[in-house]
Amino acid sequence: MQTVTESPFTLLHSSSQCRARCGEVRTLHGTFRTPVFMPVGTLGTVKGVTPENLKELGAQIILGNTYHLFIRPGHELIRSFGGLHGFMNWDRPILTDSGGFQIFSLSDLATITEEGAAFRSHLDGSKLFLSPEDAVHVQEALGSDIMMVLDTCIPYPATRDEARRATALTGRWARRCREAQSGTGQLLFGIVQGGMYPDLRAEAARELIDIGFDGYALGGLSVGEPKELMLEMLEASVPHLPPEYPVYLMGVGTPEDLVEGVYRGVDMFDCVMPTRNARNGMLFTSRGRLVIKNSCYRDDRRPVDEACNCYTCRHYSRAYLRHLFTSREILAYQLNSIHNLHYYCQLMADMRQAIAEDRFEAFRSSFYALRETPQEER
Amino acid sequence: MQTVTESPFTLLHSSSQCRARCGEVRTLHGTFRTPVFMPVGTLGTVKGVTPENLKELGAQIILGNTYHLFIRPGHELIRSFGGLHGFMNWDRPILTDSGGFQIFSLSDLATITEEGAAFRSHLDGSKLFLSPEDAVHVQEALGSDIMMVLDTCIPYPATRDEARRATALTGRWARRCREAQSGTGQLLFGIVQGGMYPDLRAEAARELIDIGFDGYALGGLSVGEPKELMLEMLEASVPHLPPEYPVYLMGVGTPEDLVEGVYRGVDMFDCVMPTRNARNGMLFTSRGRLVIKNSCYRDDRRPVDEACNCYTCRHYSRAYLRHLFTSREILAYQLNSIHNLHYYCQLMADMRQAIAEDRFEAFRSSFYALRETPQEER
Repeated sequence: MQTVTESPFTLLHSSSQCRARCGEVRTLHGTFRTPVFMPVGTLGTVKGVTPENLKELGAQIILGNTYHLFIRPGHELIRSFGGLHGFMNWDRPILTDSGGFQIFSLSDLATITEEGAAFRSHLDGSKLFLSPEDAVHVQEALGSDIMMVLDTCIPYPATRDEARRATALTGRWARRCREAQSGTGQLLFGIVQGGMYPDLRAEAARELIDIGFDGYALGGLSVGEPKELMLEMLEASVPHLPPEYPVYLMGVGTPEDLVEGVYRGVDMFDCVMPTRNARNGMLFTSRGRLVIKNSCYRDDRRPVDEACNCYTCRHYSRAYLRHLFTSREILAYQLNSIHNLHYYCQLMADMRQAIAEDRFEAFRSSFYALRETPQEER
Repeated sequence: MQTVTESPFTLLHSSSQCRARCGEVRTLHGTFRTPVFMPVGTLGTVKGVTPENLKELGAQIILGNTYHLFIRPGHELIRSFGGLHGFMNWDRPILTDSGGFQIFSLSDLATITEEGAAFRSHLDGSKLFLSPEDAVHVQEALGSDIMMVLDTCIPYPATRDEARRATALTGRWARRCREAQSGTGQLLFGIVQGGMYPDLRAEAARELIDIGFDGYALGGLSVGEPKELMLEMLEASVPHLPPEYPVYLMGVGTPEDLVEGVYRGVDMFDCVMPTRNARNGMLFTSRGRLVIKNSCYRDDRRPVDEACNCYTCRHYSRAYLRHLFTSREILAYQLNSIHNLHYYCQLMADMRQAIAEDRFEAFRSSFYALRETPQEER
C-alpha cells in the first residue's frame, strides 16, 4: 500500500564532483532553498531572538519540538491560536520533530511497546503516552509544515540485535504515522534508523521508500559516535534514498558537520549549537571559534567576525559583547544568538551559491584553509 | 562666583490649572521633549532591549549608572570607544547619575568625608574612592549629555541634624563639581537634598541656584517615605527652583507617581520599575497592573493592553507571553520590557499632548478613572 506522493522538492543544481546539491522545498507556508539550516525553537521561540531577527539573519524555516510543546503549553492550546505559526508570530515554514528523541533523552522512565512510548513529563513527572498516531495528530494540531514520524532512538553503542529490533519498530510506526494523516497538506518525513550498521540503514531506507514519504531524515547520528563513523553512516544511507526527495540530517551539527553533510548530499539540518553556544559565550566565525569572555577581548574594537554582516557585527565591538557577557546582561544572549544564527544561515547561503556555480569543492577547501590561518588574538 | 549658564530648556506650554508644563531640553546629542521618562541602562544596556527597540518604543533619552560603569568595564575603556554612546550604539541623549546613590545602596562600608566617598566594590570588594571632581571626570569620560553632581544620600527617616549636615555637604560638593568641569559642553545638574524638611530643601535649592546649574534634580525621594510625604516634599521644592531650567525627580516611580510629578511641575523622571517589573512578569496597562503568569491568561487571546500599540501588543497574546514567562524564555523578558517601557514612554507622550492642549487636569482624572473600571479577568 504505497502512498504515491508528488515530491515537494525541486532540484536546481548538482555538484559535478560530489553529492552536494541545491534545490527548493515547497510547503504550506512557502518555499525554502536548500541546503538549509533550521534554527531550533524548542518552546515556540528560538531562544533570545524575535521572529524579525530571524528573518533579518536569513532563517527560512525553523524547528519546533513536539515533546516540549505537547507538555507545555499543550498542542490543543496552540491549535486554538492557529497553530504554532499564529501562537509565536512566525509566518515562514516550521518543521516539528515527533517527540521521540526527547522522550528518550529528557523524560523519566520511558517504556516502549509496540503501541507507542509511555513516559513521564520532565517537568512534573506526570504519566504521558504517545503513539505514532498521537505524534501525527499532535503535529497536525501544531500546524507545522513538515512533520516527522515517531521513531525509536538507538543509543550508541548498541548491539546489532538492539539496532535491528528498534529499526524494525520504527518502520512499523512509520507506516502507522503515514496512515494516521488527516489530509491537512502538511508534509511528513520518514526517519532512517539502523544504528551504526550500514545494511540495517539500507534496509530501513527501502522500507520507508516502500511506504512513501515527502522527505527522508537520517536519525540516530551525532549521538556520541566518532565523527568518522557518522560520516560513514551518511555515505551508507544517502545513496539509498530517492534523489527526488529532500534529505534531512537530524540534530547536526558543527559548521564542519554542515559542510561535510552537504558534501554527502544532505539538504536540511537543525541543531541547538548556534543558540546554546551563544548563551555560553562561544561565537562562530569564519576563522573558527571565539570565546567572548576571554580577557584578550577587553578592549578589542573589532566586530566578532570582520567577514560578517550581521546586526551584531555591524554595530557592536568584541569589547562591548565581552562586557555584556561578563555582566550577564540579557542583551549578551540576544546579540550572541543573532550572530551565531546568522553565521549558520550565511554558511548555508554560501554553500548554495557555491553549488549553483559548481565550485563546492573549492568552497570546502577554502572553508578549512581559513580556519587554519593563525590568529594572534585568539 | 555664580556660573552664568544659558538654560538648555525651552518652555513650550504650561497648564493653566497646575504646574504641569511641556518643553524641550537641548543636549550634545539632540533635543528631547519634556515631560520625559528615561529608561535606565545601568551597565551600558537597557536590560532586555536593543537601541532599535528603544527608539521604536519612543525613548528619547536613557540613563546610565556611573557607579556601575566606573566599576565595570571602567570609564577609561568607555572613553576609548567614543564614550557610552559609541560603546553601546545609542546616538540619542544620555544622562548619567553621579554614582552617589549606588555607593550608599550597593557598596560595602561606604565612608563619607569632606573629600569624597570611600567605598568597596560590590563585585570584588576592592577599595575605591570618588571625590566630587572624580564624579565629574568619570562622567566626562562616559560622555553623557547630562551629568549629575555627586551627592550624599539621606536615609529615611533621618533627624533634622543628619539631614542638615548631609545637605550642606552636598552643597559644597556641588560647587566643587561645577568647578571641576572641563568645558566639554556636557550639561551638569545640581541635586536638591534636604531630607523630609521643607526649609532644608528650600535652602538647598537656593544654594544650588547660587552656584548655577543647567538643571535641578530632586534627590532623596521615594526612599521609603509615605507617598503623601514625597508629594509634600515635591510641593515644597519645585517652587524654589528657577522655572527656566529643567526639573528632574530622581528614581521615581510608578505611573501614578509620574502623573503626580508632572502635575507638580517635574520635567524628567527615571526608574528601573518598567524593566525590573517586566522581568518579574508584572505588566503595566491603561487599566492597571497585570501579572502575566496568572492562570487566567492561559488561553487569553488578547494583547496585554488593548489600548497599546507597542510591538509586543501588536503581535503577541497574553497566552503566548504567559507561556514564555512560565517557561523562562529570554523572549519573555524582551517582550515584557518592550511593553512596559512603551507604556511609560507613551504615558509621557500622552501627558505632553494633554499639556499642550491645556487639558492636563482632565487627563489626570481619566487616568485614574480608567484604573477604577472593574475588570473581570484580572
